Amino acid sequence: MDKQIRQSLFEQASAWVKEAGGRIRERMNQPFAIDTKSSPNDLVTEIDKDVEKFFAKNIRDKYPEHQLFGEEGFGDDIKTLDGTVWIVDPIDGTMNFVHQKRNFAISVGIYNNGIGEIGIIYDVMGDQLYTAKKGEGAYKNNEQLHPLNKEQTLDKSILAVNAFWALKNRRVAEEGIHRLVEKVRGTRSFGSAALEFAYVAEGILDGYLTMSLMPWDIAAGVVLLEEVGGITTQADGQPVNMLDKTTVLACNKQIHQEIIRDYVELKV
Amino acid sequence: MDKQIRQSLFEQASAWVKEAGGRIRERMNQPFAIDTKSSPNDLVTEIDKDVEKFFAKNIRDKYPEHQLFGEEGFGDDIKTLDGTVWIVDPIDGTMNFVHQKRNFAISVGIYNNGIGEIGIIYDVMGDQLYTAKKGEGAYKNNEQLHPLNKEQTLDKSILAVNAFWALKNRRVAEEGIHRLVEKVRGTRSFGSAALEFAYVAEGILDGYLTMSLMPWDIAAGVVLLEEVGGITTQADGQPVNMLDKTTVLACNKQIHQEIIRDYVELKV
Repeated sequence: MDKQIRQSLFEQASAWVKEAGGRIRERMNQPFAIDTKSSPNDLVTEIDKDVEKFFAKNIRDKYPEHQLFGEEGFGDDIKTLDGTVWIVDPIDGTMNFVHQKRNFAISVGIYNNGIGEIGIIYDVMGDQLYTAKKGEGAYKNNEQLHPLNKEQTLDKSILAVNAFWALKNRRVAEEGIHRLVEKVRGTRSFGSAALEFAYVAEGILDGYLTMSLMPWDIAAGVVLLEEVGGITTQADGQPVNMLDKTTVLACNKQIHQEIIRDYVELKV
Repeated sequence: MDKQIRQSLFEQASAWVKEAGGRIRERMNQPFAIDTKSSPNDLVTEIDKDVEKFFAKNIRDKYPEHQLFGEEGFGDDIKTLDGTVWIVDPIDGTMNFVHQKRNFAISVGIYNNGIGEIGIIYDVMGDQLYTAKKGEGAYKNNEQLHPLNKEQTLDKSILAVNAFWALKNRRVAEEGIHRLVEKVRGTRSFGSAALEFAYVAEGILDGYLTMSLMPWDIAAGVVLLEEVGGITTQADGQPVNMLDKTTVLACNKQIHQEIIRDYVELKV
């Protein structure tokens, strides 16, 4: 993508993200209706839908040739990443949103013919904006993030992995996860994939391993992480599929291969 | 404890906590020496020691009859909670401190003849001050925290429990932890006991379960949580021991008994 086009798109996307974030903060003190989707773990709120509509309308008005790929159904029926596609999660971390009224993010990734050009993750209540443009570095607010530590070792790493993946489950052999949790210095779990990506990019986590995410959970994070020298793949090292549900290992390159080789055994 | 004495003590303790926090923030941008204790998971820093010394000196100067119980060895050799005892963790969440430069807290509990009178937890980098005086409510900054939800049920709860306790370990039967992780709506792990207590008191977590904490990790949190109607016990329901290492279940009373009865089986 042409650098000037990307810059202009970035400025517009950032402005919309900040505007949506402001609207969310305003409404946080009002009661909001909570809808449930397939399970109590899959909450979605009125605000979630409104924010996606806000993006859908704005994108269609200003960039009618672009497509929108999102969770709430106001976007397009995406089969390929041809052309320019906005991959949007209006509220990443809906459980945090509902229970904590913080620790959630707006996540916007913009892809051009499959290439991640722009990543924006906005911690709405903390008012922290993580951004990246392909080849131009990653930023937290207006400060450039440092490249990830090239001396990182697994035993000194803090890994985001939810306790759930240490249970017997359908996706990954739990024995390997147990050895991994014992190997690393510590584990954390924050409940927002977008923020967990942002924290890896920021270097406050060294990796994030999880077994079931959708493209809108990761689209922005992948771009952000790449700009600090990190890497995102499926948990077995295959490239992530930006069109469908995927396992994810997002981390410092120094520990990526070791985790895949020695600790992760996916179930078919 | 007399209410006026408690108030005066509270004001002094809060002022010292804020002063210590300011000093820590100032030094965060300077390089700091990291010492290791018994394991890489048990880091302690120069600043950790300096902050404990700061409390030790101040307490001895102003309250020579009080005792100090802390991790770093500048306090007293405490055998009982007779008299007035300050139970201080200068930096709770040292791993976060070192790796993340945020998500750690100063924790100060003041006990009088074994009764928790004052609890102060200061999220230093986030500049969030949680405080409580016995019988006078709990506060975040200057806003009173609400009583915990009396309708809380376990399946709708968010529980702080580290993935480590889902592994085979010496303290708790992992099968019960697995069932618990499956039962609740979600789990989180933040890496600072004091902050996890504060989040339970704030109602953004519904419980915090862990198998190995020291008195200085919990002394302030116990007071804070009680003021919003929460409860702290050992993981089997026994009273916590404020003089020695302990297991901890700090949570909303509505789910406390159910967790103990149906999910926690301690190993002797």
